[in-house]
Amino acid sequence: MLGPCSVESYEQTRAVAELIHDLGLRVIRGGAFKPRTSPRSFQGLGEKGLKILRAVADEFGLLVVSEALGVEQLPLVSEYADIIQVGSRNMQHFPLLWALGEVDKPVLLKRGFMSTVDEWLAAAEHIASRGNPNILLCERGIRTFETATRNTLDTSAIALVKQFSSYPVLGDPSHATGRADLVIPAARSAVAAGADGLLVEVHPRPSEALSDGMQSLTLEQARQLVDDVRRVAAALGREVA
Amino acid sequence: MLGPCSVESYEQTRAVAELIHDLGLRVIRGGAFKPRTSPRSFQGLGEKGLKILRAVADEFGLLVVSEALGVEQLPLVSEYADIIQVGSRNMQHFPLLWALGEVDKPVLLKRGFMSTVDEWLAAAEHIASRGNPNILLCERGIRTFETATRNTLDTSAIALVKQFSSYPVLGDPSHATGRADLVIPAARSAVAAGADGLLVEVHPRPSEALSDGMQSLTLEQARQLVDDVRRVAAALGREVA
Amino acid sequence: MLGPCSVESYEQTRAVAELIHDLGLRVIRGGAFKPRTSPRSFQGLGEKGLKILRAVADEFGLLVVSEALGVEQLPLVSEYADIIQVGSRNMQHFPLLWALGEVDKPVLLKRGFMSTVDEWLAAAEHIASRGNPNILLCERGIRTFETATRNTLDTSAIALVKQFSSYPVLGDPSHATGRADLVIPAARSAVAAGADGLLVEVHPRPSEALSDGMQSLTLEQARQLVDDVRRVAAALGREVA
Amino acid sequence: MLGPCSVESYEQTRAVAELIHDLGLRVIRGGAFKPRTSPRSFQGLGEKGLKILRAVADEFGLLVVSEALGVEQLPLVSEYADIIQVGSRNMQHFPLLWALGEVDKPVLLKRGFMSTVDEWLAAAEHIASRGNPNILLCERGIRTFETATRNTLDTSAIALVKQFSSYPVLGDPSHATGRADLVIPAARSAVAAGADGLLVEVHPRPSEALSDGMQSLTLEQARQLVDDVRRVAAALGREVA
Repeated sequence: MLGPCSVESYEQTRAVAELIHDLGLRVIRGGAFKPRTSPRSFQGLGEKGLKILRAVADEFGLLVVSEALGVEQLPLVSEYADIIQVGSRNMQHFPLLWALGEVDKPVLLKRGFMSTVDEWLAAAEHIASRGNPNILLCERGIRTFETATRNTLDTSAIALVKQFSSYPVLGDPSHATGRADLVIPAARSAVAAGADGLLVEVHPRPSEALSDGMQSLTLEQARQLVDDVRRVAAALGREVA
Repeated sequence: MLGPCSVESYEQTRAVAELIHDLGLRVIRGGAFKPRTSPRSFQGLGEKGLKILRAVADEFGLLVVSEALGVEQLPLVSEYADIIQVGSRNMQHFPLLWALGEVDKPVLLKRGFMSTVDEWLAAAEHIASRGNPNILLCERGIRTFETATRNTLDTSAIALVKQFSSYPVLGDPSHATGRADLVIPAARSAVAAGADGLLVEVHPRPSEALSDGMQSLTLEQARQLVDDVRRVAAALGREVA
Repeated sequence: MLGPCSVESYEQTRAVAELIHDLGLRVIRGGAFKPRTSPRSFQGLGEKGLKILRAVADEFGLLVVSEALGVEQLPLVSEYADIIQVGSRNMQHFPLLWALGEVDKPVLLKRGFMSTVDEWLAAAEHIASRGNPNILLCERGIRTFETATRNTLDTSAIALVKQFSSYPVLGDPSHATGRADLVIPAARSAVAAGADGLLVEVHPRPSEALSDGMQSLTLEQARQLVDDVRRVAAALGREVA
Repeated sequence: MLGPCSVESYEQTRAVAELIHDLGLRVIRGGAFKPRTSPRSFQGLGEKGLKILRAVADEFGLLVVSEALGVEQLPLVSEYADIIQVGSRNMQHFPLLWALGEVDKPVLLKRGFMSTVDEWLAAAEHIASRGNPNILLCERGIRTFETATRNTLDTSAIALVKQFSSYPVLGDPSHATGRADLVIPAARSAVAAGADGLLVEVHPRPSEALSDGMQSLTLEQARQLVDDVRRVAAALGREVA
């Protein structure tokens, strides 16, 4: 299971990394480049963020997942991250997919929030056909008419992809729901549908987060989530790591 | 947990009722009136179907859920059914909601496949405000751009409704996915999100079903589903009935 | 072209009817039963509203279009209206469609806001196959992820239906956009795509309207709309009536 | 009004350019890089395609619009094209938007088929805020539940953007409908809603096209389209160029 966070400072990131370690998990995710719909919002710490991530990951023996926004960022992100993320808006940015096909690191390919399962698997094929078969898929909610949640977590898509592909599949209940009060049930739901892991946003003090605070769990809530999810997985004879 | 079926014959319905009883469940659902998109498809057995349902339910000590298509059918359906279903296409058919507000039986209100959670809860209020507070909500998938599944099961909506209303909530993985091979994981997913029960289509021989055969489980698959779902519920300290 | 309005009082309705007459149009629409998402909103004047509509229509020599919410309302609505409307939420309410198949008046069948063109034409077939071929189709916008407009006017559907069916097709830019400032361009757009007429909401004082005031045109704006639309139709060698 | 085509050969492109010139239009569009959902489809001629475009454009005195798939392609595409297109899947590919903000050529920004009008205008702001105010917006259909057309042309969005921004707006009826038989009415509809121009796919022999043949007009149909659209524009006192 992937740990959580959006890099704002060393202290904030270290607190999350410590929790991940305590819970026996192995991966920390963190966004260093966060372009936002509006050009006037916080856009991430850039390379400084990557350095913080690498430092705390090394301290706790974790792997780092971070997003590359485009081909030109690949060298930089590859220097610090162990797994390179393709964001939902980039799922069909083909030059990036092709370039990742030639990189020697696993790729975490988020489903486009308006992409069908067929298009998602075809995007994975764009990477794999260039030589990189190490792909993790991540369902993060699709855009629908429902506005009570930010997007709609498509747990059937998780089940479908488990059935028709051999890539591991993660669920991202944080982006899917956009609401901290729904993240735990949505996480359980993703795992019950077959997800092999989760991508969850956590923040020591969500109300002070510079991005996506509404959907970030506190450290305490994250412990609860991991506990719940492990129980569901165990009941189904699986492990979530 | 609600059992399953679309009434075609006494033998078919009895086989399903027997399974429901064996599994320790208490409710059988069956459609007697099945208007379909095209006027040339099978439209259900009508009152004959209701009689079959009542007979097999009485034999096995089960409750009957069946749909009333309009106000004018209420007297007939009420005569045979214990719980009256409002179909997804009728969720905002207000005259029916108002009439059900004056009926002395529980109402199973399916979410419109085009309705937001707010509209769904408002529809329940249309019933409750006329005097009938015995309402069961049922999430059965919403219409989205994804076509690999018939609809998209919105498990976050289940979690949301559990949080903001006091009505029991069911999940219908059969209509949501439209594919037998996804019904079991979707069912687990609904329960993990908080569903209090399920509505599942079962048929002794799905390939011969006159409606919705693609999504019907065999009796054997239904046993598997109940087993899986009970394990998930137990892991979360809940019961599914 | 169909004129406009939601019946609140004799004066308001008469002012709209007078405008329709002045513009050389022949039909007035008015809702008498207006169930709303919430049971606490204004629900229409009922039979009193129908009487007002009939009176002002007779004064100006107009035809009346009004909605029947269910089978049980058909006798009442038929007594006052010349054309019976099926609302968007009722497009697949089959008992109503079947009953309208046996009525000797034209039916205005609104497209469900979450229905495909195929389902819409099949709904028309449910009416026609019971014996009533006098059907007017009306595209009124579909539900999508876009929230800047209430729904999305699907002008391609108008073109498609003109090509594959022989029923007249209307456009409803008022419900589609939900914003008065977009009604005129949306109306032009519907006619340019092939619509044979329009259904437009008009109110002498939109800010005082009891329902849908945000999307109602003033009398002055309605004149502008009719002028624009007639010019577009003339340019394409058609008439809009 | 922008002319049409996807570059396959000199002859094919020249035939389209000649038509554009005959009709008194000034711009030719052509895709040189055509990544497709599946990595096994035709992917475009690349630089060879750009050279063909430039040559025929120069012969007939036309401007060239062509798409850059990513930041790394900008130098190449800028060498041959007069207007640089951002494709629908790239509307929120921020590094490309930022780089285009520093280019001295107009940008044609297609709306993401999954993007709201707000997100579209924000994407334009990402370009403009880096220094390039020469932006043409293009509505090309959004993804909805309707499958009879490839996407749903959102003519209300055209009207909305005309009202709230000062950028010129184009409509793309070819990608929106995905069907040649609907392109002409959809084009009329876009112009009637306020579009300043159109982007239309034309092919001398659509049935032999290597991409998007289903939606390409013949030369004869393109003449008809231009004629229709000019009549609509004239009726509304506007010109379409």
